[in-house]
Amino acid sequence: MITLVNGLSNQWIEPSDRGLQFGDGVFETVRLRHGQPMLWDRHWIRLCRGLDGLGIPRPLEADCLKELCRVANAPLVTAKLIVTRGPAPRGYAIPSKVSPTRIAMGGAVLAAEGQDRLLRIGVCATRTSLSPLPGCKHLNRLENVLARREWKPDWDEGLMLDEKGRIRCGTQSNVFVLEGNRLLTPSVSRYGVAGTRRGWLVDHAGSMGLDVREADLSLERLRKASAILLSSTVIGFRLAALVTDSPENSPAASPELVELAKAIGERMHGSG
Amino acid sequence: MITLVNGLSNQWIEPSDRGLQFGDGVFETVRLRHGQPMLWDRHWIRLCRGLDGLGIPRPLEADCLKELCRVANAPLVTAKLIVTRGPAPRGYAIPSKVSPTRIAMGGAVLAAEGQDRLLRIGVCATRTSLSPLPGCKHLNRLENVLARREWKPDWDEGLMLDEKGRIRCGTQSNVFVLEGNRLLTPSVSRYGVAGTRRGWLVDHAGSMGLDVREADLSLERLRKASAILLSSTVIGFRLAALVTDSPENSPAASPELVELAKAIGERMHGSG
Repeated sequence: MITLVNGLSNQWIEPSDRGLQFGDGVFETVRLRHGQPMLWDRHWIRLCRGLDGLGIPRPLEADCLKELCRVANAPLVTAKLIVTRGPAPRGYAIPSKVSPTRIAMGGAVLAAEGQDRLLRIGVCATRTSLSPLPGCKHLNRLENVLARREWKPDWDEGLMLDEKGRIRCGTQSNVFVLEGNRLLTPSVSRYGVAGTRRGWLVDHAGSMGLDVREADLSLERLRKASAILLSSTVIGFRLAALVTDSPENSPAASPELVELAKAIGERMHGSG
Repeated sequence: MITLVNGLSNQWIEPSDRGLQFGDGVFETVRLRHGQPMLWDRHWIRLCRGLDGLGIPRPLEADCLKELCRVANAPLVTAKLIVTRGPAPRGYAIPSKVSPTRIAMGGAVLAAEGQDRLLRIGVCATRTSLSPLPGCKHLNRLENVLARREWKPDWDEGLMLDEKGRIRCGTQSNVFVLEGNRLLTPSVSRYGVAGTRRGWLVDHAGSMGLDVREADLSLERLRKASAILLSSTVIGFRLAALVTDSPENSPAASPELVELAKAIGERMHGSG
């Protein structure tokens, strides 16, 4: 796996980097096909919103793109871009002059096949709380780490609820339920991450006969829905079912739903 | 400033370290006098509680102590000890074999004089939320970074409220108010950090005629209190006043209160 730090390989990170000291930074996980980042504009906009929110100077977009391409060493692969506030003397106070650290890392090689299987989701006990930088992918990810630790061997994803028991997200995906032609998903204005694929769905689902709306989702509502779907950079848009349900209570993965999810996923990432 | 990584100087951190990737780790800021860590047992107990909560193997206590002493290069100084889950492949999943990273860093040289001045505190707009590891000093500190950014030039500390407007902590201290002989402080069972000095006060204030209790603290209650006090490793135990108050509304720093805070602070850290 290739890693670049500020464009250079074989570099390590200063222990005083505020990314390590405080999680003072943001990241993006990007899907690349033949070295081309997909839905890049959405990643760049979210990265900039996070950096602006933290007051960290933006890197050059051209540097980010160049480095993501350099670390993407397979035809279909993810790559991670991290930007921290960089090294600094001790304490929370931000120095007057900062030198942000930019890290590009190769990620998971993605399979082009086997995307039709229903993903199995459990429910995590770890709750998700108000985000210090709502919608953005900041480096404070302990909730996700703790929730991910709870996965049973047969889980593909774990649902995270807020302190009132409302479904907010998966440990690494956005969650949707289908009710008629309505695709309902939790708001990301105070909790969680505004997924790039979630954003794409909000903008494009109408043209495919679906009406995407934000809604409070309880586990009960999830169980009654016609289908559960998850979105992320890694999985695209996939049908899912709760593992805790007995088979007869599981949302039916009808051939029509499988086709719908597949068609949306292909349009999202291009069918090539 | 000397920094040791797993006991070695001149070392940097792997970009894949989960401390950087996710804030997957904990830290302690320790006060040392002539190389001796103060209230060490409380720091060690909290560090271990955090590591156990995250499922990160504990380092040897003797290594931590030795390295803190090595980086403490002044007679009265703080030093920071960080333990992360160490480097790992990408993703939230924890590898079956982990090699934690232990970092010891020299910190601020502390002044022995000038500790009687009333600290000026403002109120931060950044709210503090439910902690993923309540009471522990985990590496997800963006809330503190954002709150610290709000400080005005004349602030010595900023208060952080929860989403319901209850006072929870300072950006880098625990908060107390005095009502009669009662010292009231917010609970740390769901929010914030269980400060080592806070713990010492809970255990020892009784012998000094004070009754420490946990209570919901509103800004209104703070304004009506006989005194506001802050505790931390760096400041010990100090009187404070809101900068937003007009002088006639500020809690009086009567000579008796100044003496009380000083006596407690000296007993906390020893008078030597």
